[in-house]
Amino acid sequence: MNANQSAEERSRVVVIGVGLIGASIGSALTQQGWAVHLRDAKVSHARVAETLGAGSVETPSASAVELVVVAVPPRALAGVVRTALETYPYATVTDVGSVKAEVLDTLWGHRELHRYVGSHPMAGTQHSGPTAARADLFADRTWVITPHRRSDPAAIDAVTRLARACDARTVIMDVDEHDAAVARVSHLPHLMSVLTAGHLTTMGEQDLALAGPGLRDVTRVAGSDPGLWEQILTANSAAVLSELRQVRDDLGQLIGAIEDGAAIRSDGHRDTRALRDRLARAVTGTRRIPGKHGAPAVAYQQVVVEIPDTPGALAKLFADVDELGVNVEDVSIDHDQNRQVGYLALAVAPDAAAGLAARMAGRGWFVQP
Amino acid sequence: MNANQSAEERSRVVVIGVGLIGASIGSALTQQGWAVHLRDAKVSHARVAETLGAGSVETPSASAVELVVVAVPPRALAGVVRTALETYPYATVTDVGSVKAEVLDTLWGHRELHRYVGSHPMAGTQHSGPTAARADLFADRTWVITPHRRSDPAAIDAVTRLARACDARTVIMDVDEHDAAVARVSHLPHLMSVLTAGHLTTMGEQDLALAGPGLRDVTRVAGSDPGLWEQILTANSAAVLSELRQVRDDLGQLIGAIEDGAAIRSDGHRDTRALRDRLARAVTGTRRIPGKHGAPAVAYQQVVVEIPDTPGALAKLFADVDELGVNVEDVSIDHDQNRQVGYLALAVAPDAAAGLAARMAGRGWFVQP
Repeated sequence: MNANQSAEERSRVVVIGVGLIGASIGSALTQQGWAVHLRDAKVSHARVAETLGAGSVETPSASAVELVVVAVPPRALAGVVRTALETYPYATVTDVGSVKAEVLDTLWGHRELHRYVGSHPMAGTQHSGPTAARADLFADRTWVITPHRRSDPAAIDAVTRLARACDARTVIMDVDEHDAAVARVSHLPHLMSVLTAGHLTTMGEQDLALAGPGLRDVTRVAGSDPGLWEQILTANSAAVLSELRQVRDDLGQLIGAIEDGAAIRSDGHRDTRALRDRLARAVTGTRRIPGKHGAPAVAYQQVVVEIPDTPGALAKLFADVDELGVNVEDVSIDHDQNRQVGYLALAVAPDAAAGLAARMAGRGWFVQP
Repeated sequence: MNANQSAEERSRVVVIGVGLIGASIGSALTQQGWAVHLRDAKVSHARVAETLGAGSVETPSASAVELVVVAVPPRALAGVVRTALETYPYATVTDVGSVKAEVLDTLWGHRELHRYVGSHPMAGTQHSGPTAARADLFADRTWVITPHRRSDPAAIDAVTRLARACDARTVIMDVDEHDAAVARVSHLPHLMSVLTAGHLTTMGEQDLALAGPGLRDVTRVAGSDPGLWEQILTANSAAVLSELRQVRDDLGQLIGAIEDGAAIRSDGHRDTRALRDRLARAVTGTRRIPGKHGAPAVAYQQVVVEIPDTPGALAKLFADVDELGVNVEDVSIDHDQNRQVGYLALAVAPDAAAGLAARMAGRGWFVQP
């Protein structure tokens, strides 16, 4: 498909709702040579999106439309999907809402439901509206497709082509599995950020002057559009409540762990093991998050070199590491309390570790086996 | 003070504990021409810091030392501060721990306490150890100084000079106020991140594949050293527990708000107002966080221009805004449902708003008053 093909040959798509997501999809598909028609309840939004290259505001012939992408707010999704199924008799209809069960439940029993397949591109920015649109918003992002038992295989294919034209990676999931997963990895973290940010409204200015980058990280997503999130959380309330109740239990246990750690026992010591276990478990949790582009988080391998007790040895050690040109991701110093010697631990990619160890040993360093 | 002065004239400082913070302080002071002596229970750490330019591992004459900076883990702080007061008879002693009351309470009654003034530089990275040290770690960061009622004015001055030599901005606070403030802006957000990250350990791989940048933001600080945080949270447990209990109440109310929003009332509608209020309150909270370098978060002002209903008008509008060369921070489209017209809202710095409005009006646009 490219821009030189005649209008009749081009994939014809209607994007309904040209906020950030809809206008970005329109821009990506227009760049791929698709014929994109834009619709929005706010005519000026569609015009802005057209000006920015997301498609045309012209009305297509309904029977020529092959695909409809519904990108309206969650509360309006089911109604607009239903109307689209009835307006465009040969089109596959998808939506890009972040909760999938509610639309399907509402439309269950509709005679054209086989042409509807939900989907969910995992992308966004803190900005909203068509002026924030970018054709590359979905590049390398996950785009979940959620077929149901009445979906036409051809409709699933059409939505897969859409996601791929936007340069996204597709994942097929069951509707309920999807909603439970986003409750866990998106909606719950959002609410934890909301609780943290809401608590800031109770503080004095002087307290806030001590805020560091950690606070900004934790509260960033809480700055998102409350109207949109109200709808997302309401649409996915059962799954969200289940996660929140688990976290309420966790919070109670955390409070208990800190109380225990604060109490001085009869032997004069404190027992902070429960607190430490919770902190360590959180570190384990952060390591489970896949890296960018869906790659698993890289586990670096450590090459540990003994630091000899001679003047200038460490400077020479650093110089030798530099010279070998291996990409060292992290450097730390370990220490053997009993032997009173130090070790330089070099974190490198697993496939580079053996080579680095051999070459350092070849230069006379004692490398830990 | 500069490097050309004789050894006798240079400020002589001992840094005890050369992890990230201690070694960074040593590097900053060395660059300012101070004579820095490094000590660490792990001799190899002091050697690494020396190699990286943070100072010298030579032992100074105790009576020549003017300032001692204690940068050891929280649990060891009070003991090391006490020993420093007794070892260096003329030195001001400060520590850089993130909780201030415990050290003071432990040492209260010590006859040399007037030479001790606590402090807390608000800086750090996710890395630790001397190899992560940077002389500019404190540049433009807040460095809290917490005098007590027995502090010598000269000791407060000495700690102020230390912070300024590291290029930090100093703030004077009462010890208990400091500890309550960091419980709110640092320790509580850390624990919210810990709860969120800990919850990830209960999820399947497939769920985690849907993780986006929001989850990474919220959980980033939970990846920090559990051993260090165990000590910080235990040292500040009273203030931390008070915040956690408030958040537990907030969480209960949030659960209630989502339950209310999920229930369909007898009139067939849902009442999501309580949920929406909580989400809106969180947005207000995020806006209270001061910007970088301690500046208040900038409130932009909007210049709103009507989008005429003529072909190409919007493109011309964008072109005119570009030509005027005003720094536009955000652009959004507003819409008047009744009049069916659109507006382009341009967010600009408050001092640029009136000029932009006048110049757009001068070019024939209708600018909202």
